[in-house]
Amino acid sequence: MEPDLLQNSHVHYLNINEDFDFGPKFKKLRITDNVRELQTVIRDKSTSRGDFIFFADRLIRLVVEEGLNQLPYKSTQVTTPTEQVYNGLRYEKGNCGVSIMRSGEAMEQGLRDCCRSIRIGKILIQSDEDTHEAKIVYAKLPPDIADRKVLLMYPIMSTGNTVVKACNILTDHKVREENIILLNLFTTPQAVQLVQHKFPEVTILTSEVHPVAPNHFGQKYFGTE
Amino acid sequence: MEPDLLQNSHVHYLNINEDFDFGPKFKKLRITDNVRELQTVIRDKSTSRGDFIFFADRLIRLVVEEGLNQLPYKSTQVTTPTEQVYNGLRYEKGNCGVSIMRSGEAMEQGLRDCCRSIRIGKILIQSDEDTHEAKIVYAKLPPDIADRKVLLMYPIMSTGNTVVKACNILTDHKVREENIILLNLFTTPQAVQLVQHKFPEVTILTSEVHPVAPNHFGQKYFGTE
Amino acid sequence: MEPDLLQNSHVHYLNINEDFDFGPKFKKLRITDNVRELQTVIRDKSTSRGDFIFFADRLIRLVVEEGLNQLPYKSTQVTTPTEQVYNGLRYEKGNCGVSIMRSGEAMEQGLRDCCRSIRIGKILIQSDEDTHEAKIVYAKLPPDIADRKVLLMYPIMSTGNTVVKACNILTDHKVREENIILLNLFTTPQAVQLVQHKFPEVTILTSEVHPVAPNHFGQKYFGTE
Amino acid sequence: MEPDLLQNSHVHYLNINEDFDFGPKFKKLRITDNVRELQTVIRDKSTSRGDFIFFADRLIRLVVEEGLNQLPYKSTQVTTPTEQVYNGLRYEKGNCGVSIMRSGEAMEQGLRDCCRSIRIGKILIQSDEDTHEAKIVYAKLPPDIADRKVLLMYPIMSTGNTVVKACNILTDHKVREENIILLNLFTTPQAVQLVQHKFPEVTILTSEVHPVAPNHFGQKYFGTE
Repeated sequence: MEPDLLQNSHVHYLNINEDFDFGPKFKKLRITDNVRELQTVIRDKSTSRGDFIFFADRLIRLVVEEGLNQLPYKSTQVTTPTEQVYNGLRYEKGNCGVSIMRSGEAMEQGLRDCCRSIRIGKILIQSDEDTHEAKIVYAKLPPDIADRKVLLMYPIMSTGNTVVKACNILTDHKVREENIILLNLFTTPQAVQLVQHKFPEVTILTSEVHPVAPNHFGQKYFGTE
Repeated sequence: MEPDLLQNSHVHYLNINEDFDFGPKFKKLRITDNVRELQTVIRDKSTSRGDFIFFADRLIRLVVEEGLNQLPYKSTQVTTPTEQVYNGLRYEKGNCGVSIMRSGEAMEQGLRDCCRSIRIGKILIQSDEDTHEAKIVYAKLPPDIADRKVLLMYPIMSTGNTVVKACNILTDHKVREENIILLNLFTTPQAVQLVQHKFPEVTILTSEVHPVAPNHFGQKYFGTE
Repeated sequence: MEPDLLQNSHVHYLNINEDFDFGPKFKKLRITDNVRELQTVIRDKSTSRGDFIFFADRLIRLVVEEGLNQLPYKSTQVTTPTEQVYNGLRYEKGNCGVSIMRSGEAMEQGLRDCCRSIRIGKILIQSDEDTHEAKIVYAKLPPDIADRKVLLMYPIMSTGNTVVKACNILTDHKVREENIILLNLFTTPQAVQLVQHKFPEVTILTSEVHPVAPNHFGQKYFGTE
Repeated sequence: MEPDLLQNSHVHYLNINEDFDFGPKFKKLRITDNVRELQTVIRDKSTSRGDFIFFADRLIRLVVEEGLNQLPYKSTQVTTPTEQVYNGLRYEKGNCGVSIMRSGEAMEQGLRDCCRSIRIGKILIQSDEDTHEAKIVYAKLPPDIADRKVLLMYPIMSTGNTVVKACNILTDHKVREENIILLNLFTTPQAVQLVQHKFPEVTILTSEVHPVAPNHFGQKYFGTE
């Protein structure tokens, strides 16, 4: 299929503009050919649900591994089987995950696959039918969350409203703003700006910033409306 | 434990020298704190077998994902659910995996977890008891391997002899040298040099170059002598 | 530790009474030594969270496989590689999963591990703080659920109220009562009786009927209060 | 498609004869509709490699879970979070897995998914090109295998010769015959008879006894000749 055949009034090219600069609290996954393929399969409307889940899970895993890298580590020395001393690093305890329903739940297994017994909380936010305001419907969090770093999971950000609301819940529970790390797959630039405006100390990790977010994610992953 | 207490005649510090330069066919995983932790747990002789397998599998997964990035991709355009055109990449077919027994087998599942139906061959090389020469005991390869790129799996390289022997088998089967990509976790500098001397076109991907290789890997992973 | 040392006023033995008879719509996993071990580790308060998740996931997988066996299959003939005709069975399409939050979500991955692209809906039911009545807070279901068989996931039943409420939601969405199959790990006899009283055509599959249900399940699995 | 259309000189129906009686050391997986479907997909020559692996892995998992049930358990009492005493069972330590190359290796991950840190040995047997006799080429076993129960993994048995040879290796290493449990998916009746004739105390667990064994298993699973 020739690209020019597709150029008409209702079709627009999505070209990734890599020029956004959102400062040091904004992190982007290193974009390799491999990552670009994962993004492409997720974007493609002709992808089957089975493939969609498989490729989304792979991208989630890479974002989770990179997210773990935003957590604190401390130096350690270990002894090898040949009695050498090896200067290494150890993960510090005191982290947890929190998924924002419903799409954020797709990231729970990826987190568990890297951190076998990490505590995973959950937040449900819905729009009030009358006022259209985002409302907290449900929140289940680790008891001592105020003392933990929080990997907040939400794969697609369009406006950023939901994540702002979730950060409100977390800070209401005494989580320190700088202890929140958002794990995200696709975001619009506006959403990053909104979250950074409200919560400048939150770390945002994503794999792609683009004006069009793949909002079908949760629906396709879970197969529900 | 204070580091200086450990300095005596039979204890040596393993400090990673990052200065090796092995040219453009040599690739090293990006070393983050997270990766350093995985390496540390694998090096530590006090790590339980269950933890060893869990952390090794995570490092293997990262090396496999980076290995896939060494394969060719081609540009593609896909249409998103909102009828936008998205410029992306697609993986090209025609790859396979080959593990070198026994430690290389630990990497098979990680490869399969990223490429569900990739063909996986296997090579067994052993030392002749009399001549001490590396000898091919067994080789099971995809039928059309000459036309494929080969992800050669071998996690620990000490001398490089085994990998050289495996590359001999592959080139005997008409695999082109530049189509071989070695997926490795830990290597000595000597092993890289030997492989590069014999097969300069082979791509080598590793996570650590260090004079001391963790030779207990296969034994600990599988629990056999 | 001697059993009799433990017999005192506040300690009671849990002995499984296998005499319950709940009729043909009630199914119990075949109880082998292996299954008994999984149940024991889940019941044991000294089990670590990592082990709890690992053993719970194994029991869930067995219940899911048995649950799939409650779905309809049809006869089929396939041809083998040696050109023989083999009389077999094929799974009929038209199923979905629905988890009841929060503990039911622990069963989603097990279902997905057996049915890669099955649609998975979700129901959240909470007690009204004033009236103490179970209230539907959230429901996300496959669009055509009325035409599907539903594997309803809820691992622990104490009173059965929550499952009754969930069945109400499903039948409100025109799911036929006989198309609901409850996948459960542990239930009290009272809960079975209540569900059967309200929905006699629902199939109930469990691994254990016992007056004391392990109500810590969700809390321990997810690590939240 | 009507069955009778297929009846001609070179096409034969495979109808499972369930009448074999091989005594108490022979165990067969409970055959449900679900298991029949797994067997059907594996038998079907039109199954894609991706599906083949997925369905084979599910059947392997069920055989492994049933295999664990052939191991010894001991009674135990645990205390529940509500301070009840629960009479349960615990798995006894002292087991290991041994796969017979190459098809047996397909069962290793299923075993590891149920027993995280079980030791897994490996045996390679090949026919001598001149004498056509089965010859041991390679054996890597846990050091203290004589004291262990052995889950011997080999999915397809046609003649039984390979398994007999593997049992010879194990008993040469002082494994007690009654401590060997063969985990198998498909076997011919002749193979069961041969193994039982040579090693009457070995436990054989399979999912299907049939005169025609699906000998393409290893080739299709790994994608090599």
